[in-house]
Amino acid sequence: MSHSAINFAEKFNSFSEQWSPKIIAQMNDYHFKIAKIQGEFVWHSHPETDEVFIVIHGKMRIELRDTNISLNSGEMVVIPKGVEHKPVAEEECQILMVEPAGTVNTGDAGGKMTIEQIEWI
Amino acid sequence: MSHSAINFAEKFNSFSEQWSPKIIAQMNDYHFKIAKIQGEFVWHSHPETDEVFIVIHGKMRIELRDTNISLNSGEMVVIPKGVEHKPVAEEECQILMVEPAGTVNTGDAGGKMTIEQIEWI
Repeated sequence: MSHSAINFAEKFNSFSEQWSPKIIAQMNDYHFKIAKIQGEFVWHSHPETDEVFIVIHGKMRIELRDTNISLNSGEMVVIPKGVEHKPVAEEECQILMVEPAGTVNTGDAGGKMTIEQIEWI
Repeated sequence: MSHSAINFAEKFNSFSEQWSPKIIAQMNDYHFKIAKIQGEFVWHSHPETDEVFIVIHGKMRIELRDTNISLNSGEMVVIPKGVEHKPVAEEECQILMVEPAGTVNTGDAGGKMTIEQIEWI
């Protein structure tokens, strides 16, 4: 697995569901996950870890309590641990996330958008 | 810093030297570094950590002792800790690397291509 090139486009073409991150790689105890997002996610934070978002295709917005961050393809941001945020995308956006293995997508918020078991693709 | 979008193209446009990684973001105790590479790097390994390469623009090859990995724009690979590798690029290639803060670019090999102090841009 680790000795092969991982092609983002091929991975994105292999699933269609939104807000359902898939693991594509592991580096030490961190996972690289991709997701298709559209609409509004839930407000949440990750009290134990920073979280990286990289936009691969499309554009998104990360709402914070006091500002918004717009992200286009070829841009990334680090959301510090404990900072409440809400990802939003008007049209479907393809993103890459980097965070410790076991990080829950809805963080401290839980709820119906929580993915209990994130699959490898 | 962490609350702003980081644009890869802007960052790459801000320097010209090759084989000189620059830190663009920190997530927990990991650094996101970009580099322009062309030609052959040195054989080395990182005995203490995996290392991620993501090609942002262009193409590169990572030579391993028993195979080669070709990487194009939009592709990534994880080089497991302890695995000897040599990055090569025929034409200038722009890459993003993810690894623990303090990871030395030449790993266990050292030598004149070692960058002792990696700067933030």
